[in-house]
Parts: sequence; structure tokens; C-alpha cells
Amino acid sequence: MSAPHVFDAAIGLQAQADGTFTGQTSPAYANMIGPFGGITAAQVLNAVLQHPDRLGEPVALTVNFAGPVADGPFTIRPRAARTNRSTQHWTVELLQGDEVLVTATVFTAVRRETWAGHEMRMPQVPRPQDAPITPRHGVEWLQRYEMRFLEGHIPSKWDGAERDDSLTRLWVRDHPPRPLDYPALTGLADIFFPRIWLRRAKFVPIGTVSMTVYYHADAAQLAATGDGHLLVQAQGQGFGGGYFDHAGQLWNERGTLLATTHQVVYYKE
Amino acid sequence: MSAPHVFDAAIGLQAQADGTFTGQTSPAYANMIGPFGGITAAQVLNAVLQHPDRLGEPVALTVNFAGPVADGPFTIRPRAARTNRSTQHWTVELLQGDEVLVTATVFTAVRRETWAGHEMRMPQVPRPQDAPITPRHGVEWLQRYEMRFLEGHIPSKWDGAERDDSLTRLWVRDHPPRPLDYPALTGLADIFFPRIWLRRAKFVPIGTVSMTVYYHADAAQLAATGDGHLLVQAQGQGFGGGYFDHAGQLWNERGTLLATTHQVVYYKE
Repeated sequence: MSAPHVFDAAIGLQAQADGTFTGQTSPAYANMIGPFGGITAAQVLNAVLQHPDRLGEPVALTVNFAGPVADGPFTIRPRAARTNRSTQHWTVELLQGDEVLVTATVFTAVRRETWAGHEMRMPQVPRPQDAPITPRHGVEWLQRYEMRFLEGHIPSKWDGAERDDSLTRLWVRDHPPRPLDYPALTGLADIFFPRIWLRRAKFVPIGTVSMTVYYHADAAQLAATGDGHLLVQAQGQGFGGGYFDHAGQLWNERGTLLATTHQVVYYKE
Repeated sequence: MSAPHVFDAAIGLQAQADGTFTGQTSPAYANMIGPFGGITAAQVLNAVLQHPDRLGEPVALTVNFAGPVADGPFTIRPRAARTNRSTQHWTVELLQGDEVLVTATVFTAVRRETWAGHEMRMPQVPRPQDAPITPRHGVEWLQRYEMRFLEGHIPSKWDGAERDDSLTRLWVRDHPPRPLDYPALTGLADIFFPRIWLRRAKFVPIGTVSMTVYYHADAAQLAATGDGHLLVQAQGQGFGGGYFDHAGQLWNERGTLLATTHQVVYYKE
């Protein structure tokens, strides 16, 4: 029996008799302070996926980072606010003691075959095997992803040289590679370093306050993606009054749009 | 004393002793079945704004349309899940009887002066006075907005002629004009007809399941906008398995980015 993948160990939850789940922050996904937000989002989604009443696959997730998650145990409390014939609306809270640190909503649905035609197309970029792995230093969670930056890398000099655009594109996958599923896709939707750093070449304190993921991949498309690379991109939209937002997209190597994502991020100064 | 603006009448709420608010759907904002989603979103936001414990201005709103709101009275139940020094995370439910029809999360914050530089710029378009008002027929809520379409109008023929892109741009404001505030901005973020209709020129049944708005405007920018027009645009991203999403932006006439928005929409066939 081989040890579980580090990602599976990190998102592992224990179902409790009262319908809640308990888990633990993972040192493997540590951020500067507390855990990487993407792993927290994956844990929140996983609680819904593990819930015995869950209907269908995730279509939309919004996670609000309300307070700092401390290293250690936590409880996730998912609740089906409404169940329709083939869709379900969940509200979720993550707590440590009686403190609410995350609020979230998840929409799941039994998908049906319909007309399809993704409009947001994968840009023309080098294949992953032609793009070298980008060495990355710093916080621990970065080592859990293999990243091949194509455009908009984190500034090499923090010299305050401002730029007009913050588009970042890279190939990324779990490290070591792991077959894609919804929790992994959720973590990958949060791997973008803050757009404000790229715009300003200044290392200002930041923190994501809310992230949304829309899942376009069904189970077959996840399976077809396997442990291949995803091309992901994000670009900032508005920056002011202490908050900026970005919009992003994630495709697999075949060019299938798997998810879109948005987040709003606090910054200081 | 003049009568209140139709929008103010529609979003009016009565505070109850238990911290909830009661309201009524407005025939003036009726959709095909039940109310226009944008007015429901504005009511949900308004409940947080009216709450005596509310801290700061809205930065992020996610509204999930969980079930059909019936014409008539409703209750909105806002709860401050967490209050920090200058930020606050709200969870909100809208109910009729004991049925949850909307779930939402709202993030509010006391904004601070920081570096600013919106990256998503207003496209070059004719001024509103040079764009004729677009006559619109159909559901009642359409008459509550003055719309001047520039690009991507609703198909004039439902002939099934498919197109590759679903970009829509228009000037829009409340009708009659009304000074902009956060609830009105929220309603305006939902005025886009479904992108799937534009892609397919086919009148398939649809329903928004989740909408997010990130507010970039502070109170001074809202005041500067007054009752002027907003340039708004939206474009679809992924379409398949019964759901599509779009991303959109809203600017005032001066070209200030006021908000960005995303939504995921159910469609049949």
C-alpha cells in the first residue's frame, strides 16, 4: 500500500455524526501565514462532495476568507439550503472553536447533454514540454505545484517599476502529478501570485477575501485531463481603495476550458 | 412630497425586531416568471446595507438563485458571520415561508486610500447622446431601464444562426434616471440578456443560478456618476452541460470602472 498523494492527505476529512467534517491544516501547503487559500477552498468543496446528501457535480463555488485560519484542526459545516430535482445549493462554514473563518456557497447539479461551445479559447502558447520548469522559492505550498511560466512572472526586481497590465500565463499541475478532480481544480484556480505585485513591482501585503470558481469540466473531461498540465491565465481588472480583482481561465492540454475563476484581494498601501 | 423612485419602492424593506427584513416583490420589475434577478440581488444587498451592525461599503456580493421567488412578500435574513476591525463577512438568506429561495454572501469593508490603477479600460465607443435608445419589448423590468445598444443586441431573428462570440456592449441607466448607489449598481450588473441566445439565435429557457459583483466604486465615484449612463459589457466564456458563464464590466461616462461581474446560467437543450 502506497502513501496517499500529499494533496489527498491535505484535503482528507473525517465525517462526524452531526453532519460536520473535521480536518487539519497541512504543513505541506503552508503559506506565509496559515494555509494556502487554494487548499482551504479545496477542503471546503471536499466537505460538500463527501456529504451523503450531495446531488450532482459542482458548477459554482464562492469561498470567502473571513479570518486567518490557524495551523491545526478545523471543522467544516456544510448545509443543503435547498435541494431541487437535479440541483442543490449549499452553504458552508469553516470554524476553529466557535470562530467562523470561512463562509462559502456551492452549487451542484446533475449535468445534462446540451449544445456546447466554449467561447473563451486557449491562447497560442508553447507546449508544456517546450517550456522549462520555473524554479520557485518561498512559501511551502509553491513546492506542491510544477509551474512553467510563459508570461507575467513574479517580478525579479522589486524596484517599483509599474506596468499597465498584469496578465500571467503558465502551465501548471500538481507536484508530484496527480489525476485531476474537482478539489485539485479548485486549488489550481488559486495559484496566481497577486496581480498587484506584477503591476507595481512592490511587495505589498495582500490577502484574498473572496474567490469564485465556475466549473465547466464534467467527469469525462476531468478523466481525459488525467495528470496533464493545465494552461492557466489571470489578469487584473480594477485596483483601488485597498482591493483589486482578477479574472482567470484554466484549460487542459487539449484546449478544453475546464473552469473560470475570479477573486477579489485586499492589499495594503 | 413626491413619490419615491420606482427602484426605491421596489427595494424598500421593513426592519423586524428579530434582525430580519421583510419586503415585497415589485410588479414593476417582473420577469417572465417571478421577479428580475437584479432586483432580488439589490434587495439582498439592501438588507445588509440597512442592517444596524453593518461596517463599511460593499466590496463583493455573491447571490445564488436557489428557487423561484413567487410574487408577494418575502423575508431576508442577514447575519454577520464575522466582523473584523474594518471588514465584515455577511451570509444572507431570502425566504418565503420556510423555503430558502436565495443564498448570498456579502463582504463589506471600510476602504482606505491606496495606490490605484484600473487595468480594464473602457472601450472606445460612441457617447450615449450619439447612440439612440433601443426600443425593447417583452417583460416588464426592461421598461425600468434606458438601454442604448452598441454591439451584440438580442437576435432580431430566432433563426438558429450560430455565432462564435457573444460580446454585448450598451449604455444603460435606470428609467427614469436616478442617482447611482450600490443597490442600483447591483441591478445594473444583471441587465444582460442570456449570452446563449446571442450565440445560438435560439430562444432556449434559461435561469441565472449564481451572480457575483465586485464593487470598485467608492461613495465619491458613485456621487460623481450621478444619474448618468453606464457603459456595460458582458461576454460568455464556457458553454456546455446545461450551464454557461459570462464575465462583465461596468464603467461610468468618465470611464471609471465601477464594478465587475460574473454569472453562471442554466440553459435547457
